[in-house]
Amino acid sequence: MISATCVAPVNIALIKYWGKRHEDLILPVNDSISMTLSTDELCAKTTVTASESFETNRMWLNGEEVPFEGSPRLQRCLKEVHRLAVANGSQKVPPSWKIHIASVNNFPTAAGLASSAAGYACLVYSLSRLYDIPLNEELTTVARQGSGSACRSLYGGFVQWHRGALDDGSDSVAKQIAPSSHWPNMHVLILVVNDERKKTASTKGMQQAVKTSQLIKHRVDKVVPERITQLREAIANHDFQTFAEITMKDSNQFHAIALDTFPPCVYMNDVSHRIVSFIHDYNEIMGGYHAAYTFDAGPNACLYVLEENVPHLLDAIQKVFPSDSFDSDTYLRGLSVPKVDKSHKIDPAQRNKIDSLDIIAKNAFRYIIHTKVGEGPRELSADNSLLINGLPLEKEK
Amino acid sequence: MISATCVAPVNIALIKYWGKRHEDLILPVNDSISMTLSTDELCAKTTVTASESFETNRMWLNGEEVPFEGSPRLQRCLKEVHRLAVANGSQKVPPSWKIHIASVNNFPTAAGLASSAAGYACLVYSLSRLYDIPLNEELTTVARQGSGSACRSLYGGFVQWHRGALDDGSDSVAKQIAPSSHWPNMHVLILVVNDERKKTASTKGMQQAVKTSQLIKHRVDKVVPERITQLREAIANHDFQTFAEITMKDSNQFHAIALDTFPPCVYMNDVSHRIVSFIHDYNEIMGGYHAAYTFDAGPNACLYVLEENVPHLLDAIQKVFPSDSFDSDTYLRGLSVPKVDKSHKIDPAQRNKIDSLDIIAKNAFRYIIHTKVGEGPRELSADNSLLINGLPLEKEK
Repeated sequence: MISATCVAPVNIALIKYWGKRHEDLILPVNDSISMTLSTDELCAKTTVTASESFETNRMWLNGEEVPFEGSPRLQRCLKEVHRLAVANGSQKVPPSWKIHIASVNNFPTAAGLASSAAGYACLVYSLSRLYDIPLNEELTTVARQGSGSACRSLYGGFVQWHRGALDDGSDSVAKQIAPSSHWPNMHVLILVVNDERKKTASTKGMQQAVKTSQLIKHRVDKVVPERITQLREAIANHDFQTFAEITMKDSNQFHAIALDTFPPCVYMNDVSHRIVSFIHDYNEIMGGYHAAYTFDAGPNACLYVLEENVPHLLDAIQKVFPSDSFDSDTYLRGLSVPKVDKSHKIDPAQRNKIDSLDIIAKNAFRYIIHTKVGEGPRELSADNSLLINGLPLEKEK
Repeated sequence: MISATCVAPVNIALIKYWGKRHEDLILPVNDSISMTLSTDELCAKTTVTASESFETNRMWLNGEEVPFEGSPRLQRCLKEVHRLAVANGSQKVPPSWKIHIASVNNFPTAAGLASSAAGYACLVYSLSRLYDIPLNEELTTVARQGSGSACRSLYGGFVQWHRGALDDGSDSVAKQIAPSSHWPNMHVLILVVNDERKKTASTKGMQQAVKTSQLIKHRVDKVVPERITQLREAIANHDFQTFAEITMKDSNQFHAIALDTFPPCVYMNDVSHRIVSFIHDYNEIMGGYHAAYTFDAGPNACLYVLEENVPHLLDAIQKVFPSDSFDSDTYLRGLSVPKVDKSHKIDPAQRNKIDSLDIIAKNAFRYIIHTKVGEGPRELSADNSLLINGLPLEKEK
């Protein structure tokens, strides 16, 4: 019996992946760029165990067993890992041994964060440790076949997923643009918004967008390639102004494409749009971009903000989106935030303008997660295992 | 002293006008097509009086005097009318005579309907009656300079506003595609949605879209020209299926462009999007398009529906968007609606599906206006005048 336990991060796209050119291989219609978030606040954790004695492949997700055979994507990942093990001459695990997998997220699914990206990245990385396969571009093509954006979670820092040109997808790989140490003060606030609408699943939404949006082609052909170049340069130069503008514009355009889909897909809600409007007002007061929003296929806002600006931004958020639970332990999660030093760094005129902002909405968020740029997946010691003798420790939450 | 009193209709765009190629002349970046609504339910009413004894031009809007000199658009319209009067050899009103104008809308501004289009169409049409100028394409260029889409309200039925190519705008004219008698059973339900957000004024929104949206060019160059051709054909053939699909797609795309604007413009709200989702569900149950939504620069839905389908649609609306005031006199306004004959016209399986739809939102609408395709502006008899000896009758509401 042989085991590996790993954690893998969530990543948030700055330039969005939306639309596939091949459904099964999960080949995207355009390049995307993301930032990897620290696993200290948000991560998937996976244990994979292989044994001669296991009769079938089995899997537990957040403590519940799920049918292994029911997931073609899961099976494809495992098959690809087997292929890479052979290609790499790895003989650590005999190919006949079945595997057991247990995976948990340390954040509630309700947060609407891209749990499948972290989950598949963690699965593929764990399998790569088990089968002794190096982390390289080829491994990102395996994660990509589990969940497209999972390929970006195999690296820390800033990551580009290249669309690729080949039909077999072998050049549709993720590559690191810059490690997290390149821009360590890049922080993130995730505003988790209350929402109960049924939404189009993103796989379906993408398919429909490619089929029916008349604007997506222009985005893919013209807009994204330019933005990729500009954003890479902004990251290289620590140019937060350009970084913020491209990030916000690309989030808006992704949602515009979703709306141009027929029937339209709507992921942001009134609260999301109020956050957008507030961030523009806030940046105007600050005389430049101090915060940039981005929204994935859901209503939650992800705000990029440099560390030194976090206290001021959070102070303003609490002013316009006050919450009765602001002082509770569970409202503001993750990294601690120093108190705003009112005498420091912010102009009195700006302070006055912030202080005179009206309340936009009360109790609009379930909670706020404060995190930052982080590293890629890593292996943990055996005492972190989620499986004992191939079976779950206990029902994980 | 000489007077004319007229009414002019509201029009609702099927293919949207969004973006100018010339700000002052109000020349659009693309053609648009609209349907004119019956003046029985919604109209602007204007009296223009010219007299040798008037010392200055004056104007009253909904009973309140407004500064005449403060409106360059108003002055431009008057100047253009003077020019046309000379060109047409009309000597009915000496050019030195000043004019008094009174204008009212028979619908609350709160309805968020395009009151300026009806208002300027009514002003220009009334002036044309006063100065004895024929209604022709040239007159539509005058209304266009008051408020772009006003040019479309000079005709009944289905109307196309041609973008034109000339710099002076002389070929940016409205032309009737088909009179209201061509498709007399084309009805409309306007769902007036509660909303209190501040919104970007449409003039500003358009300017920003042209400046910052990277998708608008593709819409203007490729999408709209195709849709214009298809919609004209659909109207010619009474093809409600194509009519509905193009109308819904173009509404969605207009809002997509607004969202792709930077900062983004958001006109629809959560209720608007729930209406969209409901209409798609409803059409799916009905096995074809029975209703088509369109949204202008605000949250209100305008639903196109053939007369024979109005009772079923309204019944379903009341099921999913129930209102406590449904039976009040002021909730369902305009044309009367025959009761749904449950034994008639609707398949029992469909009826069951409609009956089992869940409530989406309660009291989501202020009221509903039921109207239909209608005629262009017309002159009323002198006893309808809003001015007596050049002064308002009373404070109009």
